Amino acid sequence: VEFEHGGYVQESNGQFIDFSSNVNPLPFPKGIRRLKARIFESVRPYPDPYIRELCEKVSSLHGLSKEEILFGNGSSELIYLSLFALKPRSVCIPAPTFSEYERASKAIGAEIERIELDENFLLPLSSIKDTEMLIFCHPNNPTGNYIIENRKDILSLNIRHFIIDEAFIEFSEDHEKRSFLSLIKEDKRIIVIRTFTKLFPLAGVRIGYMVAEKEVIERIKAFKPPWNVNGPAMVLASSFLEERGFVERTRKLVKKEREYLIKELKALGFKPYPSVTNFILFKLKEGQTSKVLRERLQSKGIMIRDCSNFSGLDERFVRIAVKTRKDNKRLIEALKEICLKY
Amino acid sequence: VEFEHGGYVQESNGQFIDFSSNVNPLPFPKGIRRLKARIFESVRPYPDPYIRELCEKVSSLHGLSKEEILFGNGSSELIYLSLFALKPRSVCIPAPTFSEYERASKAIGAEIERIELDENFLLPLSSIKDTEMLIFCHPNNPTGNYIIENRKDILSLNIRHFIIDEAFIEFSEDHEKRSFLSLIKEDKRIIVIRTFTKLFPLAGVRIGYMVAEKEVIERIKAFKPPWNVNGPAMVLASSFLEERGFVERTRKLVKKEREYLIKELKALGFKPYPSVTNFILFKLKEGQTSKVLRERLQSKGIMIRDCSNFSGLDERFVRIAVKTRKDNKRLIEALKEICLKY
Repeated sequence: VEFEHGGYVQESNGQFIDFSSNVNPLPFPKGIRRLKARIFESVRPYPDPYIRELCEKVSSLHGLSKEEILFGNGSSELIYLSLFALKPRSVCIPAPTFSEYERASKAIGAEIERIELDENFLLPLSSIKDTEMLIFCHPNNPTGNYIIENRKDILSLNIRHFIIDEAFIEFSEDHEKRSFLSLIKEDKRIIVIRTFTKLFPLAGVRIGYMVAEKEVIERIKAFKPPWNVNGPAMVLASSFLEERGFVERTRKLVKKEREYLIKELKALGFKPYPSVTNFILFKLKEGQTSKVLRERLQSKGIMIRDCSNFSGLDERFVRIAVKTRKDNKRLIEALKEICLKY
Repeated sequence: VEFEHGGYVQESNGQFIDFSSNVNPLPFPKGIRRLKARIFESVRPYPDPYIRELCEKVSSLHGLSKEEILFGNGSSELIYLSLFALKPRSVCIPAPTFSEYERASKAIGAEIERIELDENFLLPLSSIKDTEMLIFCHPNNPTGNYIIENRKDILSLNIRHFIIDEAFIEFSEDHEKRSFLSLIKEDKRIIVIRTFTKLFPLAGVRIGYMVAEKEVIERIKAFKPPWNVNGPAMVLASSFLEERGFVERTRKLVKKEREYLIKELKALGFKPYPSVTNFILFKLKEGQTSKVLRERLQSKGIMIRDCSNFSGLDERFVRIAVKTRKDNKRLIEALKEICLKY
């Protein structure tokens, strides 16, 4: 599809005066100029609608062609666009999981079938009936584990599209072996979604991407507004992809701190679940509720995720992120104090 | 609809350690830290999904309730979401106009009826048959005029929804009298879309808003991903709304420079059309084509919009933006040189 709006200034190395794009010709006023350098260069011109630099980097990172990649205004936009474009009449969604899969499916009027995870938070494949789409988070939020143990097990299901949200997979040590990215070429039904919100902590600029077979990408692209990824997002995401040391340091820290937290939570009598990610779901002690625990921690300046509103969980569950030792210690100390009287 | 993802750190004035949001705990690496101050504070945390500060400002600017406003990832997202949510089976679109109205209508499979503007680029209301939606740009891109002379004329049409894109209206001196914003309360069919891309030149961060009756906003909101507006966009748009002096200086400059350009274009034998905006459509001389003119200007370092791919126009038309006197003079000088031999 040809891009037909004019304004290709990003290709011209600033040698052109752009009369093709209808925007205010005045320089920024003083109040705006205070907002500083690099970002500045990216906030005014239209962002590259082809997202070329990033697409190049991501395609060589994963060994994919550019036609197999689509960038979104956060991975959430990509979830919505997939549903708008593929219009499944029925969608199968595990419970508990990230609630946007269900919200997006509801928006298009799809029939939703929730599949409860088993006691180890695994997806019981035998309870999945014929459906047009299966959406799941791999590893799963908020449980922290892979709900599918063997990737290829799902391929025998009679399902037209799999949307696999790998938002947290890069925190996992065996992410390369676990990811569905390497199955894209083998099975056209697979759509993988990745984000720059979690490992690369850029939630504020909204950027994610989807990987799928060319024709699926083309179908979804028709529903995408032309300049959906902003300039600051491109600048930041592109820089982050060069930060391999940051990725390694993160994985190391998360592993160490996750083990520390799990050990301490167990010592306090809670039931933390195994996690391959940067968060931990745990079950409270008999008689405790997530609401009370959340409020007591909040009064000590600590916020946790009350999981009572996750379909498939209840007020016995909370989720915490894995942070630095100093913060993690503060959480554990606060929990100790609370548990003395609760 | 309750927002149900946890992570409300923006309300806590930094007093909390946020264990509720699953993001990387490490500080930014050096390569990222170079990207400077304010923007920095907005790129890492999740952006406010309720866009509260901006919504407050826009609602008091227009005298509207917050339930009548919806922010988007650029006005283009709002055009797409309106179509996804309202699902018109038929859409009426003037020609020539901004091509995204038709692209978005095609995505949802609507039947599209193009209405050719008359020789003064006015919309012939009598040629509009019963349709579910009318989308138009007010004032129109690329013609630069109001295609509807009297706002209330369209209200007698038998149409379920009007989407009125007022992207350029703030450049017009009588924008308050001309805007459909003041008719929102009187006619529930009206949806007005505004942007921070044109008068406020923030194309790079993608931000716009829509104004409509509460129930229409609710319907469209159900199709919107939760964090669709990024942090830098909120910081910048919010600051720009305080810049009234900038707005006044812009309007004054645009009026003066538009008059200068129109006079000079006429003197060169071109046919510029009247414009109330910051751009001018003009017709070339007998035997000239937009392609050749564009190429010759490009070789002099100047880019213009070749309008030959606008439905309803052809290779006799080009569009230029109104810029500062120095740039405008350079364009006119270049056109003079070209016209000596063309």
